[in-house]
Amino acid sequence: MQSSAQLNKQLLAVEWSGSGLRILDQRYLPELVTHHLLTTVEEVAGAIQSMQVRGAPAIGIAAAYGIVLAARQRYAQSPLNWKTVILDDITLLAESRPTAVNLAWALDKMRALFAGLEGDPEPFLLHTAKQIHQDDIDANVSMGDYGADLLGDTRAVLTHCNAGALATGGYGTALGVIRSAVNRGLQQVYATETRPWSQGARLTVWELQQDNIPSILIADLAAGYLMQQGKVQWIIVGADRIAANGDTANKIGTYALATLAKQHQLKTMIVAPSSTIDWNLPNGNKIPIEQRDPVELLPDCYQNEASLVDAWNPVFDVTPAHLIDVIVTEKGVVMRPDRQRMKSLYVSA
Amino acid sequence: MQSSAQLNKQLLAVEWSGSGLRILDQRYLPELVTHHLLTTVEEVAGAIQSMQVRGAPAIGIAAAYGIVLAARQRYAQSPLNWKTVILDDITLLAESRPTAVNLAWALDKMRALFAGLEGDPEPFLLHTAKQIHQDDIDANVSMGDYGADLLGDTRAVLTHCNAGALATGGYGTALGVIRSAVNRGLQQVYATETRPWSQGARLTVWELQQDNIPSILIADLAAGYLMQQGKVQWIIVGADRIAANGDTANKIGTYALATLAKQHQLKTMIVAPSSTIDWNLPNGNKIPIEQRDPVELLPDCYQNEASLVDAWNPVFDVTPAHLIDVIVTEKGVVMRPDRQRMKSLYVSA
Repeated sequence: MQSSAQLNKQLLAVEWSGSGLRILDQRYLPELVTHHLLTTVEEVAGAIQSMQVRGAPAIGIAAAYGIVLAARQRYAQSPLNWKTVILDDITLLAESRPTAVNLAWALDKMRALFAGLEGDPEPFLLHTAKQIHQDDIDANVSMGDYGADLLGDTRAVLTHCNAGALATGGYGTALGVIRSAVNRGLQQVYATETRPWSQGARLTVWELQQDNIPSILIADLAAGYLMQQGKVQWIIVGADRIAANGDTANKIGTYALATLAKQHQLKTMIVAPSSTIDWNLPNGNKIPIEQRDPVELLPDCYQNEASLVDAWNPVFDVTPAHLIDVIVTEKGVVMRPDRQRMKSLYVSA
Repeated sequence: MQSSAQLNKQLLAVEWSGSGLRILDQRYLPELVTHHLLTTVEEVAGAIQSMQVRGAPAIGIAAAYGIVLAARQRYAQSPLNWKTVILDDITLLAESRPTAVNLAWALDKMRALFAGLEGDPEPFLLHTAKQIHQDDIDANVSMGDYGADLLGDTRAVLTHCNAGALATGGYGTALGVIRSAVNRGLQQVYATETRPWSQGARLTVWELQQDNIPSILIADLAAGYLMQQGKVQWIIVGADRIAANGDTANKIGTYALATLAKQHQLKTMIVAPSSTIDWNLPNGNKIPIEQRDPVELLPDCYQNEASLVDAWNPVFDVTPAHLIDVIVTEKGVVMRPDRQRMKSLYVSA
């Protein structure tokens, strides 16, 4: 396929191996490129929870493969009863991380197949998991073109976190747009460090380097000065959950960046597959915001009972739709998103 | 003195020892509390350049003591000619860091004494250096009261970088206000990590803990979400140089925070001794912004010739006066600073 031909195999976050799910452990990048073969659903849930696999689309795909592994285990244990006992596995996967809706979307899609299955479910479920994976890659390539069309002759962009090949089935959402735009002449790509997990410093600039794309790293709050100095024209990011009105949950800091962009008359682009849209939520107020362990922020010396230093570690925030100039999906783009305009994506669902 | 009685000796950034200048090496905090005794002007300039001593007021004080050491050296070498040869030392100190004007202010103050000196200059210069140091402490305590008055019954504040005892002669500017406000009932102190040097994570929360003040660390860009959630009412920071119209250079990110604060109808307070005001600059456009080595931002694996990953590392930015609600100095406060209102501080200079 054309889309697969564009993929850099070194950047695959997840890949089905036959015996299980091979994942790139993103905790150790860029220093170490380490892969694990996951053969149980518990391992998949653990890998998602501990952010060995991260990025909304990638964890959806991993969860789909996790269901394949769960079905393999459960069918071997109880061929007549696997559809019931596997429900615990679905819950386990669903609860591994709360904010990204792609996870629930993928699980729903896999579970919907159960009723029609007889005999060994693995081949059928694997076929669908692979289709979810391939569809995500194809969606990214489409979004790359749509987004690059919007950028026109933009000279420089800023991205936040990692919404790249490493966060998806391949090619990337925000970084997919950036890859496509670089092919058309985009000159400069700035990336935030993205504290506290440093997805920008560890993953985004590394990923771009693997594809021979130069990038410039900045401290997160240097983004204000960068914009003030006129050094970028667009902010381009991914999404973990988009409400029906376009309000968008993404990596902590996205709200601040979109607010700053608006103040500087710059544009903000959200790039996400339609599986990221949660049509059940009328707006972003009800999107669950994951709070991770303060230890991700606290230097070691504060991690003791006597310490007076705590940390507040929400890892997502919600950017209201009025701060977003465009949402790019594989089904098309929505300019100045609101409830009405977002419906164009629902109708074609 | 009352002011000195309030000082925590563990938090002294600089202290004259008789034989030289004893400094707390802030590169290794909070893991290691390490002191060095500097006995030459070259060592003082090196300590400022490498950020062993940092913070605008503290580097001004260190430079004043540096002149004492320079005079000791130069007078011993050439008792008749020391006033000429010491000019190179003044240049060395002046060029150690470009943005903070307190450095030039302290050097000017010391140099102005030279004409009247006969014989061994050390005792006279040391007397003035100690006075500069003590004046800074006294100014901080005064500013602490002025700032706390303005906070009223504010429940929670956010500070950025370290404008504390560690950045000054003692007590601190922004953290001086926070210390005074905590004594009056301020409940919560949030601190940004302050990338890339992590002054917030390494210095501010550590310093507050030494004074039994609890604090909450956040990722830099989480400040937007913090404000959106109504968790803080004021942003309180120090300054490295204030132009005659109130435009303020401070740690990179201050501009973004003040912009975000304005969008959330929160208030921004700058706390700095009047020595931070550069009356020669009509506005902030001409304030030199220090660009430090990209290695402060880049993970090791990108620090090689073949790397396509660069970093943009300005360590200050300029917040325009219209984003600042109040500038607090030891000479009084200026609400909604502009050229006209700032003059109230000049008249009393």
